[in-house]
Amino acid sequence: MQFPGRLLDVIIVAQLRSRLNGRLVPSPFLSVESENNFPTSAGMASSASGTAAFAFALGKMYGLDGDYTSLSRRGSGSSCRSLLGGFVQWSSNHEDHTYHSSVQQLFPASHWPELKVLICVTNENPKPVGSTDAMLRCVKTSDLFRNGRVPSAKIHEKEIISALKNRDFSALAEATMRESNQLHALCLDTWPPCIYLNELSHSIMDFVHNINNYFMKNVVAYTFDAGPNAFLLTESQNISIVLKYLVECFGYTVGADSSFNDADKVTIKCLNSNKYLKITGIPYGLSDKPLDQNLLKILPSISGGIRYLISTEVGSGPQLISFIH
Amino acid sequence: MQFPGRLLDVIIVAQLRSRLNGRLVPSPFLSVESENNFPTSAGMASSASGTAAFAFALGKMYGLDGDYTSLSRRGSGSSCRSLLGGFVQWSSNHEDHTYHSSVQQLFPASHWPELKVLICVTNENPKPVGSTDAMLRCVKTSDLFRNGRVPSAKIHEKEIISALKNRDFSALAEATMRESNQLHALCLDTWPPCIYLNELSHSIMDFVHNINNYFMKNVVAYTFDAGPNAFLLTESQNISIVLKYLVECFGYTVGADSSFNDADKVTIKCLNSNKYLKITGIPYGLSDKPLDQNLLKILPSISGGIRYLISTEVGSGPQLISFIH
Repeated sequence: MQFPGRLLDVIIVAQLRSRLNGRLVPSPFLSVESENNFPTSAGMASSASGTAAFAFALGKMYGLDGDYTSLSRRGSGSSCRSLLGGFVQWSSNHEDHTYHSSVQQLFPASHWPELKVLICVTNENPKPVGSTDAMLRCVKTSDLFRNGRVPSAKIHEKEIISALKNRDFSALAEATMRESNQLHALCLDTWPPCIYLNELSHSIMDFVHNINNYFMKNVVAYTFDAGPNAFLLTESQNISIVLKYLVECFGYTVGADSSFNDADKVTIKCLNSNKYLKITGIPYGLSDKPLDQNLLKILPSISGGIRYLISTEVGSGPQLISFIH
Repeated sequence: MQFPGRLLDVIIVAQLRSRLNGRLVPSPFLSVESENNFPTSAGMASSASGTAAFAFALGKMYGLDGDYTSLSRRGSGSSCRSLLGGFVQWSSNHEDHTYHSSVQQLFPASHWPELKVLICVTNENPKPVGSTDAMLRCVKTSDLFRNGRVPSAKIHEKEIISALKNRDFSALAEATMRESNQLHALCLDTWPPCIYLNELSHSIMDFVHNINNYFMKNVVAYTFDAGPNAFLLTESQNISIVLKYLVECFGYTVGADSSFNDADKVTIKCLNSNKYLKITGIPYGLSDKPLDQNLLKILPSISGGIRYLISTEVGSGPQLISFIH
């Protein structure tokens, strides 16, 4: 694989800053080994997180204490979100006419530790249209974007920040789902259209709406980036029940549909039936409450639809694990 | 099945008008036998066309010469489009503060006889959300609708009328597809979202874009009403080649996936391969040009995805076939 030009920019800027700080860059050569446990180019912000890790490592190596976000932004605009930890806001600074973006931490990760994320990996194929291309095409061709997006985005932003502040899951869920739907609506209004959601994405959306209707409150929410893989939000007290219905509706049955490499994943099994799911990350048990058959009847079900789950939560930012001189 | 209340209104109004014209309504009782060769409630305007036929029949029976559109509108707002024949425009008359809609013929059917319609029936199930409910919900909850829809709809309307006037297929195709995409974008921005398109709809969209790219001009266009079934537009000179790729990509192979009742349909077979499709309506042969394997490689393919095709064109309005006194 060729080393991407925008990552070269990150290296050059890091070396320049280091020299400006009076430090000697030990060598103009660099050996980079990078590993990512996220599917790449599948619309899951893997390149943003990878770039953030890369900028952080370089920054540490070159002794650039402090501002890693502006360094990281040289490689990927959105990567600056991954450097501060906790709940962050990425804003464009249009007011000061620099057209640079800035990022700030709104709340530390400890603000809402009950908030959990289950990433449903349904498809690891590269996305059909890159997200930067899609965004440029959308701005250029979508009338709905031109006329309706800005006021709407401002409303969603306000709602989401307020929900985070109050740890109001129900409000966060609705605003997040509406924002996700609007993003994909704008992709569809783009010419030619960019379609990231597939049948499975739609089924997971349907699953979430039906679960919330059944519990008569929002216990789970979906959001989709530039790909068909769902990011589900839920809280500690509900994760075990949400997981159980996920396993039942989108898990696989042994022998039928489990062929991929899954050595690093734990298998969870639904006690009430013969369904399994692979999971990586934070482990949870499944609820031992029996599944409600009336709810199951109206939930969509695609056997083996979810290839595996990445179970995660809001973290406190990148960490240096070891330093080899 | 219960006789729908709004169709009762059509009968009452027809009888009242007849009496106002000085005619005696022969009997207050009425026996109605109605048949529809379109899937019902599947988002294919079957109730609009059925209501139009019903109003036309009643109007003829009660001797109401002339304005059947206002009669039909009592049963279904959009049904008035089906009564004039040719290319019609259905407008809201907001200017005169009556809030009634009106319909007018823009061009007779003879204006563009080369324009053809292939309706791909992919799913005959009733739609999950009725189109009237969806529309009301959209107006109430979609910010993109509120802020962006009206200017955009006006642009599309202008483009479509101009393309029809000039028989400019390429312009008609783009405006039609963009309008369809925008409709479904707004459905997705509705809360809770209304999703009518499914994986097959997306595949047909993809098919159309790839075919047009290959021929380096728009030879076929899609549009979707409140359902997953595609309405494809094309012209006489291209229909045989479009059909051939449709059969190849979405047709069935014998034995594998053909189980539905299809006594009234003709089977067409792709000579270059072992694919079949059922078709009803206007018959066409398939092109005898061999399929381009490079194009086939990038076209989506779902075996048996299209259950059958309804082959049709712009007609000259309802016709009285026989009158039994």
